[in-house]
Amino acid sequence: MSASADPLFSAPSLLDHIRPQALALPESGIVEVMNYGRKSEGIIPLWAGEGDLPTPSFISEAATRSLAAGETFYTWQRGIPELRAAIARYMTRLHGVPEDPERYYVTGSGMQAIQIALALTLSAGDEILIPSPVWPNAAAAAEVIGARPVFVPLSFDEARGFWLDLDRLESAVTPRSRVIFINSPANPTGFVASREALAGVLDIARRHGLWIVADEIYGRFFYEAGEGGLAPSFHDVMEPEDRILFVQTFSKNWAMTGWRLGWIEAHPSLGPVLENLIQYSTSGVAAFMQRAGVAALERGESFVAHQIERARRGRDIVARGLASSNRVRFATPPGAFYMFFGVEGETDMRALALKLVDEANIGLAPGTAFGPGGERYIRLCFARGEAQMLEATDRLVRWLQK
Amino acid sequence: MSASADPLFSAPSLLDHIRPQALALPESGIVEVMNYGRKSEGIIPLWAGEGDLPTPSFISEAATRSLAAGETFYTWQRGIPELRAAIARYMTRLHGVPEDPERYYVTGSGMQAIQIALALTLSAGDEILIPSPVWPNAAAAAEVIGARPVFVPLSFDEARGFWLDLDRLESAVTPRSRVIFINSPANPTGFVASREALAGVLDIARRHGLWIVADEIYGRFFYEAGEGGLAPSFHDVMEPEDRILFVQTFSKNWAMTGWRLGWIEAHPSLGPVLENLIQYSTSGVAAFMQRAGVAALERGESFVAHQIERARRGRDIVARGLASSNRVRFATPPGAFYMFFGVEGETDMRALALKLVDEANIGLAPGTAFGPGGERYIRLCFARGEAQMLEATDRLVRWLQK
Repeated sequence: MSASADPLFSAPSLLDHIRPQALALPESGIVEVMNYGRKSEGIIPLWAGEGDLPTPSFISEAATRSLAAGETFYTWQRGIPELRAAIARYMTRLHGVPEDPERYYVTGSGMQAIQIALALTLSAGDEILIPSPVWPNAAAAAEVIGARPVFVPLSFDEARGFWLDLDRLESAVTPRSRVIFINSPANPTGFVASREALAGVLDIARRHGLWIVADEIYGRFFYEAGEGGLAPSFHDVMEPEDRILFVQTFSKNWAMTGWRLGWIEAHPSLGPVLENLIQYSTSGVAAFMQRAGVAALERGESFVAHQIERARRGRDIVARGLASSNRVRFATPPGAFYMFFGVEGETDMRALALKLVDEANIGLAPGTAFGPGGERYIRLCFARGEAQMLEATDRLVRWLQK
Repeated sequence: MSASADPLFSAPSLLDHIRPQALALPESGIVEVMNYGRKSEGIIPLWAGEGDLPTPSFISEAATRSLAAGETFYTWQRGIPELRAAIARYMTRLHGVPEDPERYYVTGSGMQAIQIALALTLSAGDEILIPSPVWPNAAAAAEVIGARPVFVPLSFDEARGFWLDLDRLESAVTPRSRVIFINSPANPTGFVASREALAGVLDIARRHGLWIVADEIYGRFFYEAGEGGLAPSFHDVMEPEDRILFVQTFSKNWAMTGWRLGWIEAHPSLGPVLENLIQYSTSGVAAFMQRAGVAALERGESFVAHQIERARRGRDIVARGLASSNRVRFATPPGAFYMFFGVEGETDMRALALKLVDEANIGLAPGTAFGPGGERYIRLCFARGEAQMLEATDRLVRWLQK
């Protein structure tokens, strides 16, 4: 049978007619393993970047009350004034920055904050520098625009863990460079930029006229002695007129991954443009969702502390287990809530993730999902309760020692 | 004082460094009047495309129950299976299309459905044909991509109202054309394409290899004798392999404007690409919001009928009032829920909208917000209760007769 007579080949494909950039977008390598492993009974899912606690009820109930009161109409594109004010107070408490609600624009997820930050700064053909391995979505969002991600490999040694070589970053700058995307503390590597490193990145950005998109969503998941438990932030080193856009989310601190609620922090002069970009992407966020955000920021501190303490304990449990196995190459991460490690004798990490589903009943995410430099690693999320982390580590270590 | 010594001139502006396309985005001309009029006590707001009823409680309570049950984790990027199945049943009931959940992808608003449909089909430099006057957001979303909206003026006469000249549409096609955006029933004009007109648009799209993005969100707000009260739809004339993407929203039928919940309907072969585009823009919609969508589709019919009946009565009240004034050029619209009319002696419609706030205490949207052809019109939303529509019409007619 000739190919043209086979309906599988002869059917005209709609895919032939879409934008090449859309067609070329990567599928999430994490989702593949999740779809494979969902059916496995009793699996401990450490593949996604979320914990096991649902959103605290004082947060959900703020949304419920708003819904019951009929707050179901169109609202402010920038976010309701109450939430922008609450974000401003929170950021002032955390970073000592001047309290200014005009710096904050509510978005329908941290992901949308990234999308809008990139729509503000990148055109088709431009380049964005991204240290990698890295959570893949910022690069993919740049590709949707037609821009090109330029990955700058992080360095690794077991003593220091992952670190950013500033010379390597600067040598990747070209005349098409527009943005440096910095995620610190980082997913999946646990890399945390020191204050000096951030100052160095800012110097590079200033010298070359680049924007920085700062993804500091794991800023409070920092396990070394620091100022108030906070990882270093661009807030510590920037001047008001620096070209820095911060992207943020309610997902991690307040166990609100499913909500899709975040914000952008930017110089107030960018407000009208940010408002337009929100208008022409989702036209804002439901007011009742935003009420939940206010509750999270104003009454969520003890819950956040609890989450961080759980993650710290999860990290220590996994680190002890991995160290005992003698087959694993890793460094205990100073921040975020992932262990990103290599396994002696394993080169195909996608296959390893599938094997760990079948043979150890734990769900991990293959490093191949995280761009250049991730190929020999696998990611484990340790933001869960002690009992589950002990059991998962036990399953993993027993499998490693088989 | 020299310009350079004046801080207003010498301050470096971050706006100088953003993408030109982002800087050039239009501000919403509707929002300007809303912001102006919000302070006016007792104003009757007919400027936005929403009614006065909050979301019915059986819908809100479905979200509340889901929240209380802890459905606050990451969920399916394409939408929860229950909602995709409910949409499929609903669309089959409405349009007799085969029941296939794989045709439906949940989005965080109808606006996001448009954004994603355009990201699937348009690259920088491409052109999208849009009959106008038209709700401005589709054109603006194309501009964010770097594509160029090409407006095709609708024709108007008082007997027929607004209508689409197919020759005029086809003559606007160029080698850069990729998409025809068709909103029918239309905001703001009330234009409703006949089945023959839709078949004609489809012919043009087929001949030139173009996509159609079909915005039929007002399809049930149709006031002429039709099949089951439904406006003609591309579903009536298309073949399965036609390049048509439908964008939809829960906003209008179910009084859920504030929720930001919609869907895309597309050929199932496009599923993986649509899923990626969702992943890299907002990464899905909260599961508890989607439960509300299921309730709306499965238990919302009598509410939808009530909404349509109210809009029909609102339309008739306003049409009678305008006809009595002798100063207004309009046709009673066969669909959607807007009266779009010109006023003798008034040429600056933005100024007219502001005057109507100050002098008649009613809020209308200037036609200038709706692109080429809208400059001499003003838009009034009649999707409100009878008492308010009578009072608003009375205020308007008294002002017109002053």
